[in-house]
Amino acid sequence: MTLILKGNIISAEKYGELNIVENGYLVSNNGIIEGVFKTLPQEYQNNKIVDYGDKLIMQSFSDMHLHAPQYPMLGMGMDLPLLDWLNTYTFPVEANFKNTDFARKIYHELALKLIKNGTTRVAMFSSLHKEATLILMDELERAGICGYVGKVNMDRNGGIDLQEKTQESIDETIDWLKKSNFKHIKPIITPRFTPSCTNELMEALGKIIKEYNLPIQSHLSENTSEVSWVKELHPDCPEYFDTYVKYGMWNNKTLMAHCVHSSPRELKSMKDNGVYVVHCAASNQNLMSGYAQIKKMVDDGINVVLGSDIAGGDYLSMFDNVAATIRASKARNILDNWETGFLTVSQAYYLGTSAANKFFDEKPGFAKGNKLHCLILDDSKLVSARKLTIKERFERSIYNRQDDAIISVYSEGRKVL
Amino acid sequence: MTLILKGNIISAEKYGELNIVENGYLVSNNGIIEGVFKTLPQEYQNNKIVDYGDKLIMQSFSDMHLHAPQYPMLGMGMDLPLLDWLNTYTFPVEANFKNTDFARKIYHELALKLIKNGTTRVAMFSSLHKEATLILMDELERAGICGYVGKVNMDRNGGIDLQEKTQESIDETIDWLKKSNFKHIKPIITPRFTPSCTNELMEALGKIIKEYNLPIQSHLSENTSEVSWVKELHPDCPEYFDTYVKYGMWNNKTLMAHCVHSSPRELKSMKDNGVYVVHCAASNQNLMSGYAQIKKMVDDGINVVLGSDIAGGDYLSMFDNVAATIRASKARNILDNWETGFLTVSQAYYLGTSAANKFFDEKPGFAKGNKLHCLILDDSKLVSARKLTIKERFERSIYNRQDDAIISVYSEGRKVL
Repeated sequence: MTLILKGNIISAEKYGELNIVENGYLVSNNGIIEGVFKTLPQEYQNNKIVDYGDKLIMQSFSDMHLHAPQYPMLGMGMDLPLLDWLNTYTFPVEANFKNTDFARKIYHELALKLIKNGTTRVAMFSSLHKEATLILMDELERAGICGYVGKVNMDRNGGIDLQEKTQESIDETIDWLKKSNFKHIKPIITPRFTPSCTNELMEALGKIIKEYNLPIQSHLSENTSEVSWVKELHPDCPEYFDTYVKYGMWNNKTLMAHCVHSSPRELKSMKDNGVYVVHCAASNQNLMSGYAQIKKMVDDGINVVLGSDIAGGDYLSMFDNVAATIRASKARNILDNWETGFLTVSQAYYLGTSAANKFFDEKPGFAKGNKLHCLILDDSKLVSARKLTIKERFERSIYNRQDDAIISVYSEGRKVL
Repeated sequence: MTLILKGNIISAEKYGELNIVENGYLVSNNGIIEGVFKTLPQEYQNNKIVDYGDKLIMQSFSDMHLHAPQYPMLGMGMDLPLLDWLNTYTFPVEANFKNTDFARKIYHELALKLIKNGTTRVAMFSSLHKEATLILMDELERAGICGYVGKVNMDRNGGIDLQEKTQESIDETIDWLKKSNFKHIKPIITPRFTPSCTNELMEALGKIIKEYNLPIQSHLSENTSEVSWVKELHPDCPEYFDTYVKYGMWNNKTLMAHCVHSSPRELKSMKDNGVYVVHCAASNQNLMSGYAQIKKMVDDGINVVLGSDIAGGDYLSMFDNVAATIRASKARNILDNWETGFLTVSQAYYLGTSAANKFFDEKPGFAKGNKLHCLILDDSKLVSARKLTIKERFERSIYNRQDDAIISVYSEGRKVL
């Protein structure tokens, strides 16, 4: 089935460069992109066109790190230090997800909100609860979202209500994998972070990753006290990342959230092994973790993608998170005495969209062969002093959160809004 | 006429402390607050009650620095350095306001948006155009907003389309003052900033301030190159602020936006003279001006209020600006190697509301004798994992921008939404 979308088409094929085709045609076939055309090629002349007029047709977003069970605590406890925040809010809220009715209600709401905000691909942490994790996968699948969900593993340092026994964690993980039969939502192995998992559990998870050929997501070098804690826990490992390397969790299907305090050696290893940094600008600001050297990481050839990291981050919308990424890069620049530069809106948008395509085995932008993921934005309610260029309208839309301005969303070719 | 609002009442009587009265009564008489009561006093028993049920009744916001003519460029040009941004966007957009039809359209829209966002008091820059300034005042008055608007003075360094002759600037200012007959919107003298005004103009404005007994607003020590520029222009003045002191523009009715790079001497003089720092967190981040020492300023007893500073700032909503203020304070803390602390949500809310009351000759919070400025917030669409406290609901509402959650707004006792 051929689908032709007409409008002002914006994509990020190269880092820092927008491809803009005014009044162009975005053509896909059975959900696979054929191309973006200024003039509709002869072969498609007889197909029906969905005409979005003067609206913006943009790549939709990939949110590559967020905690689904923390959605009900969005924007709370932000005055607390990290450990108090975890104990007062995060862990008790996550513990609620043993209740499957509650999980169904919250995850249904979250899935719809993601689509409404133009996020069509995710890499998501669930809680340690197997049933709730399957419910989350089911709700995302139904809403039309694609990507990965991980049942969290934690057999130490989680508190009474939020911790598994080692063998239980292994068994539940295997059972969860067997029951994960969804078309667009796939499992990803998710040790919460090194302090949450015993060596025994990590070893077992490493074997599962190998056996099932699964991707991995976790946290890395988020704040300085966490880095010190990992050093104490693992005198056998020279650095934090070595605790993941050791168990076969360090390759080009590995997502590591934060990396604010990664050493040069850690960063070099990420580059050499194709590991992804998931930059979580809002969360790193809210929890005062620090400002990662994102611009330098990208320039050095490290894979960098973006994550909302709700609820350390307080923005579910990736429009806001792209803006937060720009602001964080400007803070980093100020911290560096205005010497290291900042991310432009085009660069940050690339990180929030195209950069994640690689993780999904695709090319950047609306490349031929990619699955169709896009959103249609109606920015006509905003006032202006003159006729704006498409690029200006694009930039303005990144900064101005406009509820209900996203009028349609396509995910893997399916119209999901 | 007695007005009784019932609901969960939140106000900031003291810096850093919220006053919360669950299911309380906020009583006013002819627009003047009588008090907040847990139980309705006998004398009001026969009055009609406007019952907002479980909703939040909060102080509305004061936006003490924003550029009205920059509203149509919200969120644009954020990748540009300050001078390019001014020349490409700010000055050309402002120049459009010689067109009174255009001014009417934009200012009507802006006034409605401010009310919709719960901002009921402002100190606002217009452009240099007298007619457009009167239109702005008229539109704010009609929408129900209170506060100050200034016709901008600039007789140097403004470019061809946005500069006055010295005598013209003086004459137009006097004519504008004569025509400014609005009940809730009053004039404020507004030299754009020192580099925009010749000494001759500054001297004349100083005399006008004295003769008409007017407040003053301008910019101060926003970025390092501006500070150097002022030093070059004024070899007679030891520091930037001395250029305002010299012309009688330095007292407890003076608003100075930014003060990011103010010296200890400048800050001490602000304290000694009761001058207000208008902190513009979003703008200072976007334009990479730097991070002001806001926490220290407040602790040192300097008057600090907040401004959205659109369109250097990209948030019109003061909810967002309060959140941006917290984030900027956390950035400052990181910049200071985690040693200087950050602003809590209660502290930042105080700066966005009560702190400005002093400028309007009122006490903080919903104090008896204050004019009634408040908003009613319906946060029932947000999900949660348990029954939240009012304080938690308040904090969550600061962080979660909720379009259309503000269901009513009162400004000087009048229901304006």
